[in-house]
Amino acid sequence: MSRALPQTQPMDGLPDKVTVYEVGPRDGLQNEAATVPTATKAEFIRRIIAAGLQTVETTSFVSPRWVPQLADATDLLADLGEAGRGPLRPVLVPNERGLDRALEAGVGAVAIFGSATETFAHKNLGRSRAESVEMFSPVVRRAQDAGLWVRAYVSMCFGDPWKGPVPVDRVADACAELMDLGCDQLSIGDTIGTGTAGHVEALLEALGQRGIGVDRIGVHFHDTYGQALTNTLTALRAGVTVVDASTGGLGGCPYAKSATGNLATEDLVWLLDGAGVETGIDLDALVATSVWMAEQLGRPSPSRVVKALSGG
Amino acid sequence: MSRALPQTQPMDGLPDKVTVYEVGPRDGLQNEAATVPTATKAEFIRRIIAAGLQTVETTSFVSPRWVPQLADATDLLADLGEAGRGPLRPVLVPNERGLDRALEAGVGAVAIFGSATETFAHKNLGRSRAESVEMFSPVVRRAQDAGLWVRAYVSMCFGDPWKGPVPVDRVADACAELMDLGCDQLSIGDTIGTGTAGHVEALLEALGQRGIGVDRIGVHFHDTYGQALTNTLTALRAGVTVVDASTGGLGGCPYAKSATGNLATEDLVWLLDGAGVETGIDLDALVATSVWMAEQLGRPSPSRVVKALSGG
Repeated sequence: MSRALPQTQPMDGLPDKVTVYEVGPRDGLQNEAATVPTATKAEFIRRIIAAGLQTVETTSFVSPRWVPQLADATDLLADLGEAGRGPLRPVLVPNERGLDRALEAGVGAVAIFGSATETFAHKNLGRSRAESVEMFSPVVRRAQDAGLWVRAYVSMCFGDPWKGPVPVDRVADACAELMDLGCDQLSIGDTIGTGTAGHVEALLEALGQRGIGVDRIGVHFHDTYGQALTNTLTALRAGVTVVDASTGGLGGCPYAKSATGNLATEDLVWLLDGAGVETGIDLDALVATSVWMAEQLGRPSPSRVVKALSGG
Repeated sequence: MSRALPQTQPMDGLPDKVTVYEVGPRDGLQNEAATVPTATKAEFIRRIIAAGLQTVETTSFVSPRWVPQLADATDLLADLGEAGRGPLRPVLVPNERGLDRALEAGVGAVAIFGSATETFAHKNLGRSRAESVEMFSPVVRRAQDAGLWVRAYVSMCFGDPWKGPVPVDRVADACAELMDLGCDQLSIGDTIGTGTAGHVEALLEALGQRGIGVDRIGVHFHDTYGQALTNTLTALRAGVTVVDASTGGLGGCPYAKSATGNLATEDLVWLLDGAGVETGIDLDALVATSVWMAEQLGRPSPSRVVKALSGG
């Protein structure tokens, strides 16, 4: 196989540049059974950055009782030093206590994690959706006062494992409530992976009607039903330029019946390289990173590009 | 998980109806290591048809020395009876000898299998590309004289494992030479799965310039680099209405370094159901068929939808 492939063939209607928002170290490792040593996580992040990823979510300051895999957030940021600071290295903060710890660690950006549905708000946040917005309000205000960049994740935007379908307008309203707190970026999440292309277009349009333009939206798709890349391409054609992806396809949703993972960064880069869209990412270096990380985890990468290019 | 999902959300720019051209029994089983009993193949085809698939390629009259998995083509068609006849049940014929056997078996449609590149023509057909067109000429003429519907597959349309990139114009010329023999439909194949969305648009445009419109084109994508469904959606937006897919994602390309399979019919139907595009296919019945077939083969289906809906 010649690495002259994919053949670059520019595509009309796509942005010139796309920012890949790398979620592997946080969303990926959070959903791995194995506990990864802090030094290995730091090395993973350094290799990802060296491969050209600019925006990397490094960890989560959630309670270790809930996510023991990321209990070492403070130690990890100490190990990373400057590489873990600044506006391009967000960390997840579930509440004010998490924000306190993140501020102590010297981060430059945070992300909160809301829900489009009542059921998931109760299951994941232990309160109603309205109560969760109230809880996030001082988190966002204090983060902004401290000069941090703030992202709002909204999960279950395309269906909910308990409720089934979720009306687009309800989702857009839930997103608007969080963005109204003053967040800089919205990430719409298909947590269970059931969304399809027309649904993506409809939600982006509903968000636009609420004043949330594609310049402030990132998309976060899971591949549980094989739709992650198709949904991503649809969002790019609608003008989105920020795409969440996970190096090697690490992670998934523990609530989905079949926990297949995030969109693999490599599979996304293959598409973008082919379409002549600039990402700044060195695909071969990224594949090498995933091969190395798969060895650390003791299981092969689920990314098709990693499998194909590494002969796996 | 509620089967109220995917949520139907119609998408502009897609056809109202799509014909899924099912290749699992031929392209899928041809690339399985296990030899499947004839009665099992017949049952597989009957279940696929019962699930609503209308066009099903049943087998190949290639030499058993090359493809021992399909050596029972005549017996299979005898078992299928009327269900294996007519214009919606094509069989692959590699040459005139294959056509003779197919005519004896009473088929109503055939497919020939050409190459976009010299290297693959030599490796797969044992002759130059020009010689292969010469070889196919009497096959197509005699098939038409017998009243058969004729499809022309062209492989390696988006890259070749030995040559690397293949110019779009060269591919379009190769396709036009086969269509000029009088074939009814062209199937453009990304045999090694390296193609991306812009490349699909470019090839469809080049074919249009040669008088081969989207009404005569089917698309055949492999998921080796995770691009199969994205490429398919791109072709649908360009007006294509015939998509090759393999129930359960059976099969692949033995020449690709990492032989991941055809686009899974179920993953395609999930996309189309979500976009409100009519296929006539009962997704649950098709998933049940793939679960049953996976038991016969002794390995799980690689389709993400089959995995998710069967709890696998």
